[in-house]
Amino acid sequence: MSKQRQLKLGAMVHGVGHGWGEWRHPQALANASVNFDFYKQQTQLAEAAKFDFVFIADSLHIHEKSSPHYLNRFEPLTILSALAATTRHIGLVATVTVSYTEPFQVARQFASLDHISGGRAGWNVVTSWLSGTADNFGKAEHPPHAVRYRIAKEHVAVVKGLWDSWEDDAFAYDKQSGEFFTPGKLHALEHKGEFFSVKGPLNIARSRQGQPVIFQAGTSEAGRSFAAENSDAIFVSPESFDEARAYYQDLKQRASGFGREAQKLSILPGIRPIVGRDEAEVESRYQQAVELVTIEDAIVALGRPFNDHDFSQYPLDAPFPELGDLGSDSQKGGSDRIKQLARDEGLTLREVALRFSRPRRDFVGTPERVADALQTWFEQGAADGFIINSLLPDGLQYFTELVVPILQQRGLFRDEYSGSTLRANLGLEVPANRHASTPIEEKSEALA
Amino acid sequence: MSKQRQLKLGAMVHGVGHGWGEWRHPQALANASVNFDFYKQQTQLAEAAKFDFVFIADSLHIHEKSSPHYLNRFEPLTILSALAATTRHIGLVATVTVSYTEPFQVARQFASLDHISGGRAGWNVVTSWLSGTADNFGKAEHPPHAVRYRIAKEHVAVVKGLWDSWEDDAFAYDKQSGEFFTPGKLHALEHKGEFFSVKGPLNIARSRQGQPVIFQAGTSEAGRSFAAENSDAIFVSPESFDEARAYYQDLKQRASGFGREAQKLSILPGIRPIVGRDEAEVESRYQQAVELVTIEDAIVALGRPFNDHDFSQYPLDAPFPELGDLGSDSQKGGSDRIKQLARDEGLTLREVALRFSRPRRDFVGTPERVADALQTWFEQGAADGFIINSLLPDGLQYFTELVVPILQQRGLFRDEYSGSTLRANLGLEVPANRHASTPIEEKSEALA
Repeated sequence: MSKQRQLKLGAMVHGVGHGWGEWRHPQALANASVNFDFYKQQTQLAEAAKFDFVFIADSLHIHEKSSPHYLNRFEPLTILSALAATTRHIGLVATVTVSYTEPFQVARQFASLDHISGGRAGWNVVTSWLSGTADNFGKAEHPPHAVRYRIAKEHVAVVKGLWDSWEDDAFAYDKQSGEFFTPGKLHALEHKGEFFSVKGPLNIARSRQGQPVIFQAGTSEAGRSFAAENSDAIFVSPESFDEARAYYQDLKQRASGFGREAQKLSILPGIRPIVGRDEAEVESRYQQAVELVTIEDAIVALGRPFNDHDFSQYPLDAPFPELGDLGSDSQKGGSDRIKQLARDEGLTLREVALRFSRPRRDFVGTPERVADALQTWFEQGAADGFIINSLLPDGLQYFTELVVPILQQRGLFRDEYSGSTLRANLGLEVPANRHASTPIEEKSEALA
Repeated sequence: MSKQRQLKLGAMVHGVGHGWGEWRHPQALANASVNFDFYKQQTQLAEAAKFDFVFIADSLHIHEKSSPHYLNRFEPLTILSALAATTRHIGLVATVTVSYTEPFQVARQFASLDHISGGRAGWNVVTSWLSGTADNFGKAEHPPHAVRYRIAKEHVAVVKGLWDSWEDDAFAYDKQSGEFFTPGKLHALEHKGEFFSVKGPLNIARSRQGQPVIFQAGTSEAGRSFAAENSDAIFVSPESFDEARAYYQDLKQRASGFGREAQKLSILPGIRPIVGRDEAEVESRYQQAVELVTIEDAIVALGRPFNDHDFSQYPLDAPFPELGDLGSDSQKGGSDRIKQLARDEGLTLREVALRFSRPRRDFVGTPERVADALQTWFEQGAADGFIINSLLPDGLQYFTELVVPILQQRGLFRDEYSGSTLRANLGLEVPANRHASTPIEEKSEALA
């Protein structure tokens, strides 16, 4: 690790786009969210640019007003398994909720993806915040925010425990004696907790990276604490450099507080860059992106962190409405931030809605300008890297072809993959199996 | 459909083999069950031979005595998603239990696989029979046999209902007007039943084949009834031609009784062929397979349909023990058959155990001889095709290279894929969406 510290880069691949109107761009594939060729092409672009990972977002509840990108899309673990077969180096990060899943199944499918991909799986742990999700899973009520994080903590602990069911040297494969595995190196978990009771063992071994990498995106108090304690990488969507830096410092401090090496925890703001070859193209592309955001869509989008609250009932150009506790039991971190911003800056509903739906100017510019901005955030304590949430159908291609080479020239990003697992890319050790008697050092080969 | 009726062929791909000792063969890959290259190679062999599908078995509970092929293996939906990316025509059939899964998640992951593969997904619906499975999913007790089939019926109905959430022409994709889909063509399921309460709609549309194909393997009274009513194809493991024919006739009659076209329901015995180029090689290969079956393993294997009952407590060469009701709440069909065979033929425990673990002679022989046997079963009312459960590491290769060409020469099997979906391969229509106003005929293109 004597080399210069380098950026980590991930690409969010989200079919028709993560905004409400992106599918309306003339070059957009309207069926992109269920188009395997599109996912393959985007992922191969990211891999050719030596990105650390692709990232698939998710949710489990739709209705007639939901955004096109939620309505009809691939399920993350299946699409990433398919992408594993068409890539060799890039990490594969799937968003899977802890609110409506069984730890045994989650542990197993991620471990399977991890084997299929040769150790490139990552799990973005989320708690579901849309209360309608409960109706798809036969639950009488959606758990409140604080309970969701208690569930998350126990769920992740169970999954990690199941992942360690088999010691790394458990398999003897002795054809002569008939000893397939060494008794004593297979471990049942015997977990009995507040929410889950899981005996184990898991019916799949650890992969080359030991365990899939844990991603999280907590912004509320409970979310930050959970992320700092449990995750290897954090996805966050700050509204400004100052917010990003404050978050970065806070999370690193919390990680240290949990006895962790803070520099091993990667803080990765999700950003929406718009790149053009010159100022004229930058402005043209920025305007294309802005025009895809209608005020009607922005108002619907604004409702989402508030459990799909209907903001169309309020006057657009009056001050942002007083909402009381609304949102604190859904996406608490996100909705709190919206309320605070509206209050701090005295904004109208229209202004707030457009602020959160339109692309921000921070990462809009020529390749040099965008690279400068990334470098500033990276060097001034606001980011360890970024998740690129491209706008416009060719946004990822523009970024990889125009910005990445500059980052490479500056020594800020890799020219070639050095490791073959996601952990190795992210500079993380292979975690020792909790049951192993062999010392950690002998097992860790990821950082060779 | 004026063409000659042809065989359907599937390949069971099961890593280290489906027997306890197959991994001990000198050429066996001991890590095959988590080796993606092995799965890819086997699947590509089957696709090159124009097989209808590959089939992945599954279970969710292991312990120290479990067979190597259960201990450490890929999860079916993830491995088949990866295989979808490396194949173009072959169907992809995943075993997924209804006993410990949520219909919303099952519907969604299969639909996602169906889109990734361009309409090649199949679901082998099983009820979990090992009571220890409950301990991995926090359930106080494993549901008894009859309840499992009530759960199955409701679970499958919910999944099929969710698959029809979107009408096939729901997506307007009108970039000018901003109409992504046509209101009224998205349908919530609003299911409230004995075991499941699922509102929907599902967040993924139907694929080119409308819905994944339903496989089942019922042999008990409840299982047969369920399979005849709900499945498109049936996987069965008969012990003899007579048993196969009796089952075939029974299931076809039951299907007619449910108002279905009986010839659309494919009955596919799982067989373990051993092929050699000449009699000497046949005998050598047969002996290799027999030698991999130890009496100790056969005794453990025998216990499985009886909920992993320990048969080592009984004398090997005494008459098969009296077991009372044992097994009737686990794999009822399979355990009943074992008890009856032992009684009818007056066998010892050793004889019963070896009978079920050793390869049967029916499909052991030279290529012509094996082709003859397949043809006899097919033409004399015992099978619509077969699931090839290969023995020996190169078993599938022997079968595809030596037997399939003979079947093709006889006009009993396709030379080329005619359709591109699993339904088209199996001669099944695209099912009309239950909500569609468009007549079925206009939508069905699979049988062109």
